[in-house]
Amino acid sequence: MRVDIEFPTTKQTELIDITGPVQDAVLDSGVSSGICALFVPHTTAGLLVNENWDLTVKQDLLDTLERLVPWRANYAHTEGNAAAHIKSCLVGTSATLQVDEGHVDLGRWQGVFFAEFDGPRQRRVWIRVIPDQVT
Amino acid sequence: MRVDIEFPTTKQTELIDITGPVQDAVLDSGVSSGICALFVPHTTAGLLVNENWDLTVKQDLLDTLERLVPWRANYAHTEGNAAAHIKSCLVGTSATLQVDEGHVDLGRWQGVFFAEFDGPRQRRVWIRVIPDQVT
Amino acid sequence: MRVDIEFPTTKQTELIDITGPVQDAVLDSGVSSGICALFVPHTTAGLLVNENWDLTVKQDLLDTLERLVPWRANYAHTEGNAAAHIKSCLVGTSATLQVDEGHVDLGRWQGVFFAEFDGPRQRRVWIRVIPDQVT
Repeated sequence: MRVDIEFPTTKQTELIDITGPVQDAVLDSGVSSGICALFVPHTTAGLLVNENWDLTVKQDLLDTLERLVPWRANYAHTEGNAAAHIKSCLVGTSATLQVDEGHVDLGRWQGVFFAEFDGPRQRRVWIRVIPDQVT
Repeated sequence: MRVDIEFPTTKQTELIDITGPVQDAVLDSGVSSGICALFVPHTTAGLLVNENWDLTVKQDLLDTLERLVPWRANYAHTEGNAAAHIKSCLVGTSATLQVDEGHVDLGRWQGVFFAEFDGPRQRRVWIRVIPDQVT
Repeated sequence: MRVDIEFPTTKQTELIDITGPVQDAVLDSGVSSGICALFVPHTTAGLLVNENWDLTVKQDLLDTLERLVPWRANYAHTEGNAAAHIKSCLVGTSATLQVDEGHVDLGRWQGVFFAEFDGPRQRRVWIRVIPDQVT
């Protein structure tokens, strides 16, 4: 069964920590052991797993992506958000996490982030939990 | 059970929309709810999910990857296709989609693309559907 | 059930072929058909699937990532390893492989690599195998 989380973004480009809502969805699924598939149904956003402790890591990532794929450049796409589509392809729109003892297993410093590249908008992440054994 | 799709690419670098064949494979699997794991068994190609409506998005992505990882540069790999290997690593060779009511669930503007970085060649994508419940 | 592999890295930046240990974990799982989810519980490392034959491909990838995301630049993160976090986000921390007849199915030239971006350190990869059918 799919669980959706929905939230507004507030800036053109930002990383939003969704670790809490993802943990809640996994707990609600009742699956104790397996994987958790996350999917972003948008073409100008992405998903990533990285440090959730030091906020400067988020800024360095966004700044570096902007340097590599500038918002204004000689793009063919006329809607003005070509850079957001490209960043989405580099970061990716799906991630697969692991579930153990009923919760998402992450490394000590890791969090799950929604990456907004063309906000502010209303956004969704789809969550699905797959058991790895017959329960 | 794995389902393979096979197709020729026609250019050195291109994005090929494979949403239709992936949907067919999911329908054939008979799984109504779960995930669909896609895998590219090649080292100079990748998989991505992005806009399938405006063709300029595809061109901007390919042009930007070429700017970041130029075909001709001072590479150590002597086969001449080092850039294709690197682009494959940046875009990735696996993607996990979600399946609901027997079909792949995508966002309104999303399509699934095979990314050719060293064509033209004959290429394959492996598709496997995993149920998230006992049926 | 999760299987962990653990190993030391020896350089600041390197790619380590973990295809063998991943194959062993899949064999041990007893699953004959399904998927294998890999996850790196670190924020300065990643996972990728690419050529395991010609060693120059590895060097070209590491050199290109260093050119795009230099170790020394004007980063906000004060621990000095901002570049490693960013490379981790570009390459990704999860990968989903396919399992057939009890072993990981890869393309002829593919291997599975752990990407170290801030070593040397002790590192782990989490492996979980999910069957795609009732056995």
